[in-house]
Amino acid sequence: MTIKKIAVLPGDGIGPEIMAEAVKVLNALDLPLQLDWADVGGKAFETSGHPLPPATLKLAQEADAVLFGAVGDWKYDKLERSLRPEQAILGLRKALGLFANFRPAICYEQLTHASSLKPELVAGLDILLIRELTGDIYFGQPRGRRTAVDGHFPGADEAFDTMRYSRPEIERIAHVAFQAAQKRNKRLTSVDKANVLETSQFWKDIVTEVHAQYPDVELDHMYVDNAAMQLVKAPKKFDVVVTGNMFGDILSDEAAMLTGSIGMLPSASLDANNKGLYEPSHGSAPDIAGKGIANPLATILSAAMMLKFSLNQPAAAARIEAAVESVLAQGLRTADIWSEGTSKVTTREMGDAVVKAI
Amino acid sequence: MTIKKIAVLPGDGIGPEIMAEAVKVLNALDLPLQLDWADVGGKAFETSGHPLPPATLKLAQEADAVLFGAVGDWKYDKLERSLRPEQAILGLRKALGLFANFRPAICYEQLTHASSLKPELVAGLDILLIRELTGDIYFGQPRGRRTAVDGHFPGADEAFDTMRYSRPEIERIAHVAFQAAQKRNKRLTSVDKANVLETSQFWKDIVTEVHAQYPDVELDHMYVDNAAMQLVKAPKKFDVVVTGNMFGDILSDEAAMLTGSIGMLPSASLDANNKGLYEPSHGSAPDIAGKGIANPLATILSAAMMLKFSLNQPAAAARIEAAVESVLAQGLRTADIWSEGTSKVTTREMGDAVVKAI
Ligand SMILES: CC(C)[C@H](C(=O)O)[C@@H](O)C(=O)O
Ligand SMILES: CC(C)[C@H](C(=O)O)[C@@H](O)C(=O)O
Repeated sequence: MTIKKIAVLPGDGIGPEIMAEAVKVLNALDLPLQLDWADVGGKAFETSGHPLPPATLKLAQEADAVLFGAVGDWKYDKLERSLRPEQAILGLRKALGLFANFRPAICYEQLTHASSLKPELVAGLDILLIRELTGDIYFGQPRGRRTAVDGHFPGADEAFDTMRYSRPEIERIAHVAFQAAQKRNKRLTSVDKANVLETSQFWKDIVTEVHAQYPDVELDHMYVDNAAMQLVKAPKKFDVVVTGNMFGDILSDEAAMLTGSIGMLPSASLDANNKGLYEPSHGSAPDIAGKGIANPLATILSAAMMLKFSLNQPAAAARIEAAVESVLAQGLRTADIWSEGTSKVTTREMGDAVVKAI
Repeated sequence: MTIKKIAVLPGDGIGPEIMAEAVKVLNALDLPLQLDWADVGGKAFETSGHPLPPATLKLAQEADAVLFGAVGDWKYDKLERSLRPEQAILGLRKALGLFANFRPAICYEQLTHASSLKPELVAGLDILLIRELTGDIYFGQPRGRRTAVDGHFPGADEAFDTMRYSRPEIERIAHVAFQAAQKRNKRLTSVDKANVLETSQFWKDIVTEVHAQYPDVELDHMYVDNAAMQLVKAPKKFDVVVTGNMFGDILSDEAAMLTGSIGMLPSASLDANNKGLYEPSHGSAPDIAGKGIANPLATILSAAMMLKFSLNQPAAAARIEAAVESVLAQGLRTADIWSEGTSKVTTREMGDAVVKAI
């Protein structure tokens, strides 16, 4: 393996603490990795006046993969939108062309009780939600404010955004989703709102077309409102779910929360060549930042996804995953997943335990 | 009370069965109501070639209130969108100006166990979700297909829709929501995606402005992805939620499903003068249509909402609500809410029991 360059972007809130543990774990694997650190989000705004400074973007562009902590803090709420921490993540997705977001929602056996749902509904839950990440109403132009010329109140001030998807954008995410389903239980649910939206009808038509190339995968279509219900009612009926950027934002978070242990869930955002950005599914949690109690496992598991998807090191990834299983089996828990009868550990102790288990 | 005209639109699937029971209950109250029936949805398409025929629309327009069953059946999936059953409901909302959708998510004490969630998380749950119903990306123009001129694939075919809200549209739904909160626990959560969407930022700004007129209500803002999570994590923290048409579609169904007894949940869609359309929150359930096993209580409770909101008959509404509580207390259950130790009844038996309890 030639030396691989990883851009390490810890970010805000608990970002630096959880990232320190993930890096410790990566180092323990003794792989030829070069880690380059940079500020991002609110931290970067404070040091360089922008949440995604040119130097950080360049580092990310030149790296083989990006390991990302979390961004955001209430203290930046008053900034104009283009300077707020979350613009860093939107900017990275766009600049790096990270169109395929993998959001697993897995319920670990030992953590089943942490779910809001009854144990029988979530025990063994393993859904993969694939969200398109560079299109849709997130980036569609035109958008802004203007005077309404029609609608209910012509002449009034209005704000507007454009939802849009082009054929190749839908095709490429559909291929990603069908291929992911082939590696799992071969069932794909495509979520849209085709009974109302033109964009959704187009999405549905094209996913159906692409399906012809994957006859071994069972495809069904579901409206987004129904998907939001079925996730609560019977989450285990899902295998792989594919949807657009906006619906995916909502459903992936809903699905993650069903597991009850969002502190355990990694994510990957990939470009067309499997270069990717890897980050925990949870946020920057400014309320517990600096206390050393955050759960580093989602970030550690994100590093494992990085090894698998972008660095072609599946064996190393499996070692991390096995180590995480083992610390759970040992009964070690950070505060967010702690329950009677298990041992509460700090962020650092959890990272150390994973390193030891490797 | 002068004679009030009610347009009764049973629709498809289980619609006719559940409507028959709601009408039985209304008749039992001995109020001066004139009920006029008409076809809607797939049924209307079959009899008159359109899901919302002019005669049905006229009846609805001339009525003091509309009682609606449900529309939709898989057999209409192949029709072009403008002829599909759900266009009837979109058409009625638009033509009647029904901009304020009230979707209560209530967990009845006796049905707590039916929820996917652990009992302690939903016992006593009582959320009111208020969804704007005539704006947003549902009706925004322009929409359609075209050749992309920019974006990731200029020159490719694309589909697009327009999300939009004007100031008066947001103001009026905000007033409705603050006033509803004043009558409850005085807490309002406004849901948006202001970190990404112009429309949402405008929404948030205007809701904040309108708040100045309701200093007794506590307002908070939440991103839609977070709201989808918090509903699962701690639904009882919500009192009144207000959001746009698209996010409201998703979140109101998620919230309804949390209760585990969507067969119990009514809804109201009101215009600026409290004229309204009332319908159960559940769908047309074609799989169980004609079997006499559907739960009529959501439709019966929708009739109660109609008496309260549109017909100024709060006492009659309270009689229906008390009768429903009483049949539940008697242990009567349709199949969807049945559990060990309760008595399973048919649609008709349930309706008869409510009439008897009145
Ligand atoms: C921070 C925000 C812009 C972002 C999104 O909406 O995509 C976040 O919610 C996510 O899901 O990664
Ligand atoms: C049938 C459909 C158009 C409708 C909607 O999306 O509004 C339904 O889901 C609802 O919530 O009443």
